[in-house]
Amino acid sequence: MAVIAFIGLGQMGAPMGSNLLRDGHQLKVFDINPTAVQQLVEKGATAAVTPAQAAVDAEFVITMLPNGDLVRSVLLGEQGVCDGLSPQALVIDMSTIHPLQTDALIHDMKQRGFSMMDVPVGRTSDHAIAGTLLLLAGGTSEQVERATPILMAMGSELVNAGGPGMGIRVKLINNYMSIALNALSAEAAVLCEALGLSFDVALKVMSGTPAGKGHFTTSWPNKVLKGDLSPAFMIDLAHKDLGIALDVANQLHVPMPLGAASREVYNQARAAGRGREDWSAILEQVRTCAGLSH
Amino acid sequence: MAVIAFIGLGQMGAPMGSNLLRDGHQLKVFDINPTAVQQLVEKGATAAVTPAQAAVDAEFVITMLPNGDLVRSVLLGEQGVCDGLSPQALVIDMSTIHPLQTDALIHDMKQRGFSMMDVPVGRTSDHAIAGTLLLLAGGTSEQVERATPILMAMGSELVNAGGPGMGIRVKLINNYMSIALNALSAEAAVLCEALGLSFDVALKVMSGTPAGKGHFTTSWPNKVLKGDLSPAFMIDLAHKDLGIALDVANQLHVPMPLGAASREVYNQARAAGRGREDWSAILEQVRTCAGLSH
Amino acid sequence: MAVIAFIGLGQMGAPMGSNLLRDGHQLKVFDINPTAVQQLVEKGATAAVTPAQAAVDAEFVITMLPNGDLVRSVLLGEQGVCDGLSPQALVIDMSTIHPLQTDALIHDMKQRGFSMMDVPVGRTSDHAIAGTLLLLAGGTSEQVERATPILMAMGSELVNAGGPGMGIRVKLINNYMSIALNALSAEAAVLCEALGLSFDVALKVMSGTPAGKGHFTTSWPNKVLKGDLSPAFMIDLAHKDLGIALDVANQLHVPMPLGAASREVYNQARAAGRGREDWSAILEQVRTCAGLSH
Amino acid sequence: MAVIAFIGLGQMGAPMGSNLLRDGHQLKVFDINPTAVQQLVEKGATAAVTPAQAAVDAEFVITMLPNGDLVRSVLLGEQGVCDGLSPQALVIDMSTIHPLQTDALIHDMKQRGFSMMDVPVGRTSDHAIAGTLLLLAGGTSEQVERATPILMAMGSELVNAGGPGMGIRVKLINNYMSIALNALSAEAAVLCEALGLSFDVALKVMSGTPAGKGHFTTSWPNKVLKGDLSPAFMIDLAHKDLGIALDVANQLHVPMPLGAASREVYNQARAAGRGREDWSAILEQVRTCAGLSH
Repeated sequence: MAVIAFIGLGQMGAPMGSNLLRDGHQLKVFDINPTAVQQLVEKGATAAVTPAQAAVDAEFVITMLPNGDLVRSVLLGEQGVCDGLSPQALVIDMSTIHPLQTDALIHDMKQRGFSMMDVPVGRTSDHAIAGTLLLLAGGTSEQVERATPILMAMGSELVNAGGPGMGIRVKLINNYMSIALNALSAEAAVLCEALGLSFDVALKVMSGTPAGKGHFTTSWPNKVLKGDLSPAFMIDLAHKDLGIALDVANQLHVPMPLGAASREVYNQARAAGRGREDWSAILEQVRTCAGLSH
Repeated sequence: MAVIAFIGLGQMGAPMGSNLLRDGHQLKVFDINPTAVQQLVEKGATAAVTPAQAAVDAEFVITMLPNGDLVRSVLLGEQGVCDGLSPQALVIDMSTIHPLQTDALIHDMKQRGFSMMDVPVGRTSDHAIAGTLLLLAGGTSEQVERATPILMAMGSELVNAGGPGMGIRVKLINNYMSIALNALSAEAAVLCEALGLSFDVALKVMSGTPAGKGHFTTSWPNKVLKGDLSPAFMIDLAHKDLGIALDVANQLHVPMPLGAASREVYNQARAAGRGREDWSAILEQVRTCAGLSH
Repeated sequence: MAVIAFIGLGQMGAPMGSNLLRDGHQLKVFDINPTAVQQLVEKGATAAVTPAQAAVDAEFVITMLPNGDLVRSVLLGEQGVCDGLSPQALVIDMSTIHPLQTDALIHDMKQRGFSMMDVPVGRTSDHAIAGTLLLLAGGTSEQVERATPILMAMGSELVNAGGPGMGIRVKLINNYMSIALNALSAEAAVLCEALGLSFDVALKVMSGTPAGKGHFTTSWPNKVLKGDLSPAFMIDLAHKDLGIALDVANQLHVPMPLGAASREVYNQARAAGRGREDWSAILEQVRTCAGLSH
Repeated sequence: MAVIAFIGLGQMGAPMGSNLLRDGHQLKVFDINPTAVQQLVEKGATAAVTPAQAAVDAEFVITMLPNGDLVRSVLLGEQGVCDGLSPQALVIDMSTIHPLQTDALIHDMKQRGFSMMDVPVGRTSDHAIAGTLLLLAGGTSEQVERATPILMAMGSELVNAGGPGMGIRVKLINNYMSIALNALSAEAAVLCEALGLSFDVALKVMSGTPAGKGHFTTSWPNKVLKGDLSPAFMIDLAHKDLGIALDVANQLHVPMPLGAASREVYNQARAAGRGREDWSAILEQVRTCAGLSH
């Protein structure tokens, strides 16, 4: 069993700490909220008055904080973790912060001789309580291996994201996609309602198409991801259909800001000469706009 | 076996017509492209010189044309279908057109004593050739029942969309969702590349979350669709994560027009007092903006 | 004084017709609304029962209708203008319609031997009443010269837009710019309010900068319009400032969809290597995206 | 003549400092770039090795730095201005930073007994050299009065923005408006080019309308700003015209992301029942979306 400093006992951190205690680990906790600290102490944790004090003798330091400025301050600020940390310890930041901040923190910690990895989590506070979080581990192989037994006290599935900083990156991509998709889904569902179409019928149809299954595993793998842009469904036609949908939505007063933005992406793809390419070529179009194509 | 007028022998219409012939139906075809007509004639169809002539004696008239103006012209214009059509015949428009045009056409045909339904198709020209199209049938129960044997010569799956005009509606919703989602997916994939993250890792993670599975069957059913807006994941936090993603994307020069538009939707939801509601409440937010809420 | 057929007596057309009568012209009017017709008849016009009848003996035919389909139908449909029109007459469409429809109409009329020009109007119904409309004349020099005396009965300023179809084009550009600018201005004004800043102070400052004066005559003429992209104000800095504004707006719950879209344009400009160019280079960036650059 | 600490000798700061020297002030300068420091020293300034040292004995401290984190660090960090500052001195931040950061800095300085104001500048580095900057002064009346003689050494026009933090706010609004407007102007100009319309003709027309003159002083003052929403130009018609423009742009492959976003704003205004209100009511619509209406 390990000695673990746990800093940040919020809605996620508190149950994560409880699960570490339940697994028999020795916990030293710090939070600015004394009630949160007290609740963990009642379960067997020791209270620390500064992050530095929590870090003394710890084999692992876990941070679960609302933003990157706080993580930086807790690690590198006055009375911060670094002031008490052993060079043999492993710092695990489980917060959701800006990936470029994560990179900078890992770099700065390394310069001071400390080892740090990023393991943000997926799923909800219910999963935090149940110990069934999704663990997105960014670190060297050694770091991931070393942290796994500790992490698995808090989660039920661990994804090795492929290196330091990659845990927070995959969290970011996943959240970006799901959060924006939520807004797009709302546009489609509201247009459905405005058209008087049964949502169940729409769901039934979409469940068998990229509308419901996404593109990553349907329309892309045998096309753009293989470099084949010959059209199964042409960008020109996709652009036309989008125009019809927006026209109908505007007649019915359904605001579609994402749809409107997407039409301009197809529009630009056509201006770039891609009108007769497969719709999956939108990926290449966006890559080009981002300066990633040759 | 039925007598069928088939008008519009393009990339989709030609193989659909062939499949009707293969099933033993008697086909009278019309297209402005003589080569397309000739190819069907060689397979046993009869050529008509006008839509009206094709319609004479037909039990079914199928139209498969590029846009609604053409469908209207072919049906109601000079030498159009109506000039030869029997009141007992059933007109089936299989084109992808503007749903409000479909409504108007069904209405105008009815006024002249004719029966019309909409059955746009899903999937690709390969499926048209194989006779495995998805048939999205809009019509009365009687129309759908009557058309089914004919339609099943061209497709492998028929969805009863729930009434006249609903076939084209469900097609529109499905295409809207999949086409806009394609552009959103490209943003996520390009951000992934710009971040140096393995796309396979991203896919693996997203395959288990709404990012990959969509919201219709994951985050919505037990929340907004049941009227429960208590937060599993708060709009405020979703908005924050979106902000981080956009900030990173802007630092890395990845244009994210859909993501940027979506942040403003969350922004507006927060202005409307929904910040602490579940992210699925975005559906209610968009409904309100569309004037659909009480 | 001329014999003029006037078709379309709505909010704009009615006072325009009145002003032609006041100037002593002989007016033959047509509208589907009998009340509108009656009011012009009381002022001295003659009622026609079809557009064709109105056109008989007319030296000029003026159309002022809500959309291009109606203009087409009134000119080329059954009992349309063409059925009564003399080849010596000049048709002047003053409606605001789709410019590519205007082109097609001018072309189709020419094929039948008729002369047509486009003269949409600017300003409001108050100006229509006062006879002080802005006349945006699209036509050959001969057409413009011939129409000018008639047109000046309805307006106080005539701009020769440079050829057939150019009147409607300049109207479109002007309206696009002013209508979208209205929404952008609202974003700025609401952010101003949310920030607790006096709108008068903001106006005072903006009145001296491109924010209030526009870019066409300030930041562009000596820069991008001369091919000089050396930075007076760098795209990188403009992008940064836009990011601050959006960040503040999102903290204050002010939705900024246009601002959000504009940041992605600057983002893309930076991806294209323009970060250190003058902000007026956004014009070149958009030209490139539209496929207009070499 | 005053003793002034000047911190931040970049493209703007260096000439601003020179102008203060030219006016006879005694300057103590600090920058991390020794070359920049040396150049001011050659003109008569004294070099300081820390911000704290620069602040000793200064009556005014001017900061001109790239971002708010730097301003905070220079003022409140180790060896920062506060470590040397007299309570009688006035700190003037002339940087362009985040307004909520400005508020926090003014607050934190006040808590330590120091007086601070914000005076960001308008115009370009050429104006900095010529001493003709636009000075946007945020501060109490006393602060503005006291700073004015110093500020006028660097600029030719001073706007009293109305209180502490208001200088940076008006800078932000002005820049937001002008930077986003630049992108919108590019869309209009590129559509103009794609339509084959002379830009000079477009300019001529727009120079007399809100498209060129903006809305703040044309379409708004007698309408929405007076609470009169009776239509001079209806939202429904503006929405229609925007739809035509976007349709044309999409046919011609001109991407219009701002235009597309603006249509959805009008769309939403119509959903909110504002279709027959004056187009200036878009201001009220955006206010409502921002939660600012009753």
